[in-house]
Amino acid sequence: MGDISGGSRPALAIHGGAGTITRAAMTNEMEAEIRAVLEQSVQAGHHLLLAGSTSTDAVIAAIKVMEDSPLFNAGNGSVFNAAGKHEMDASIMEGEGLHAGAVASVSCIKNPIDLATRVMTDSEHVMLMGDGAEEFARQQGIEVMDSDYFYTDFRWQQLQRIKARELAEKDQQDQWFSTVGAVALDGHGNLAAGTSTGGTSNKRWGRVGDSPIIGAGTYASNDSCAVSATGHGEFFIRHVVAYNICKSVELGTPLSEAADIVVNDILVKARGEGGIIAIDKQGNIAMPFNSEGMYRASIDTEGEMVVSIYRENGEAEGALTGNVDH
Amino acid sequence: MGDISGGSRPALAIHGGAGTITRAAMTNEMEAEIRAVLEQSVQAGHHLLLAGSTSTDAVIAAIKVMEDSPLFNAGNGSVFNAAGKHEMDASIMEGEGLHAGAVASVSCIKNPIDLATRVMTDSEHVMLMGDGAEEFARQQGIEVMDSDYFYTDFRWQQLQRIKARELAEKDQQDQWFSTVGAVALDGHGNLAAGTSTGGTSNKRWGRVGDSPIIGAGTYASNDSCAVSATGHGEFFIRHVVAYNICKSVELGTPLSEAADIVVNDILVKARGEGGIIAIDKQGNIAMPFNSEGMYRASIDTEGEMVVSIYRENGEAEGALTGNVDH
Repeated sequence: MGDISGGSRPALAIHGGAGTITRAAMTNEMEAEIRAVLEQSVQAGHHLLLAGSTSTDAVIAAIKVMEDSPLFNAGNGSVFNAAGKHEMDASIMEGEGLHAGAVASVSCIKNPIDLATRVMTDSEHVMLMGDGAEEFARQQGIEVMDSDYFYTDFRWQQLQRIKARELAEKDQQDQWFSTVGAVALDGHGNLAAGTSTGGTSNKRWGRVGDSPIIGAGTYASNDSCAVSATGHGEFFIRHVVAYNICKSVELGTPLSEAADIVVNDILVKARGEGGIIAIDKQGNIAMPFNSEGMYRASIDTEGEMVVSIYRENGEAEGALTGNVDH
Repeated sequence: MGDISGGSRPALAIHGGAGTITRAAMTNEMEAEIRAVLEQSVQAGHHLLLAGSTSTDAVIAAIKVMEDSPLFNAGNGSVFNAAGKHEMDASIMEGEGLHAGAVASVSCIKNPIDLATRVMTDSEHVMLMGDGAEEFARQQGIEVMDSDYFYTDFRWQQLQRIKARELAEKDQQDQWFSTVGAVALDGHGNLAAGTSTGGTSNKRWGRVGDSPIIGAGTYASNDSCAVSATGHGEFFIRHVVAYNICKSVELGTPLSEAADIVVNDILVKARGEGGIIAIDKQGNIAMPFNSEGMYRASIDTEGEMVVSIYRENGEAEGALTGNVDH
């Protein structure tokens, strides 16, 4: 399965965020809904890959399924900032040519990953932010929505809870758990990575996390691998997580080892909670996380699909499970 | 000279931007003024280091001299965006503990490097942007100025020229040539790096360059080195320039070689014009650039001061000198 004559066997991995995800806090119904969207996302991307599409298009398609679902903190379903508004970030990168695009703090874009892609393909820039990014979006004919579209009662109640408890900083581990991302290897042997997020609930001061930062939340190079991250963004920026893994792979470290060192050693020592998904030129997939759970799914070069939320049998207990001191 | 009993011999390097800087286009008077500010900047930082201050304080002091001078594209003297306004970026990072702070697109902050530092020391975040960053600045009592303070006739005329020629994208090589930055090793053996910029003249859409991005424009780790970059930001983001050099040094490549590979090989192949300054734990300094010139100065561990603008005797011709195809 998954072979394209003369090319690579395509493969794809996605995440829907990492954090404090416990069986105890999850209803069977909720879990079934989340698994269904993860499966729909990974299959949307893989379907395109099998049809000969690029890894970039597969990453975009997979991410858009999660942006369009209210269950994830990206696009529809994004969290509210302290002012009760939405500030979404997204980034994308192609392993061939190192083309990249990113947007930070956009509030009315239906699919921020589309806008990040348009920055990559139709501007001279890599990163646009705020009102300026939205002006560019309108010039490009990117779909905009009014704020009602992004409203979900779950996120609104989350903001009220956080405000009521005045625990904005302490409560961050509940907030990033559904940033979304995808990485893919296509039949032409090209890698791509993308990430999209609604940021952190109750965030102030125009805070920018790792998701829109090329090198931190997203990186892809055909010389190494493609990575999308999710976690406590400040730590992911300071440790340049996505590029850190790519550079190690470029210098010869196997993907699983490079990813494990960053997530379960460097980030654990720094107490930076989260995880990453990564894929290399051979289609090897790594999805390590140091938190209790990470929404994730993959279809490997053999066409084998995995959809997971919690730690599976045989995976070590998350080093930052439980009481992370933020 | 420059020794502190029991500690490291401190050293410092600064840049005032790289780009199309030719003797033909420079008056003797202008050159003397620029050299004087570079010397004042490097001495301000070094003076603090000799007195036992931290590398962070030395970097801030050196950068503020250039932010306060109208001759550089940072703070006073920043370029105008397409709307005739100022959008300034800055970032700072400490090699010990990897603490970092950054601000993007602030318009009224007298010294953006001070605000980046306050993000590092007084918030839970690494990067703040736009109005939110300015709200944080006001809460912190950071000095704000009205727009008149940032006005310089030279920059205003530059914007009019660029608009008249409708060469916004083509003319970028004239624009970044005076981003400022500093790197330092202090007597305690700690490294720090910082960068500050007014962005690019006539910029649109809330474009973010490499200067406020930890990993791209600025990085520091006591395990390797401290780097501040200046150049065509999009290329510096895509190649994660500052961290790229740090990671190579961490893995054993000598500083000068690591810096040279990124600036004169990787960036030259990508046609990404610019340069970097870097300093390692031993106080070795590298200041490579692939453009015609780079405003730069350093005081090494022996107390030896160098102030340069053009390529010195013995330095190879800049690979991207002249007609860069942006």
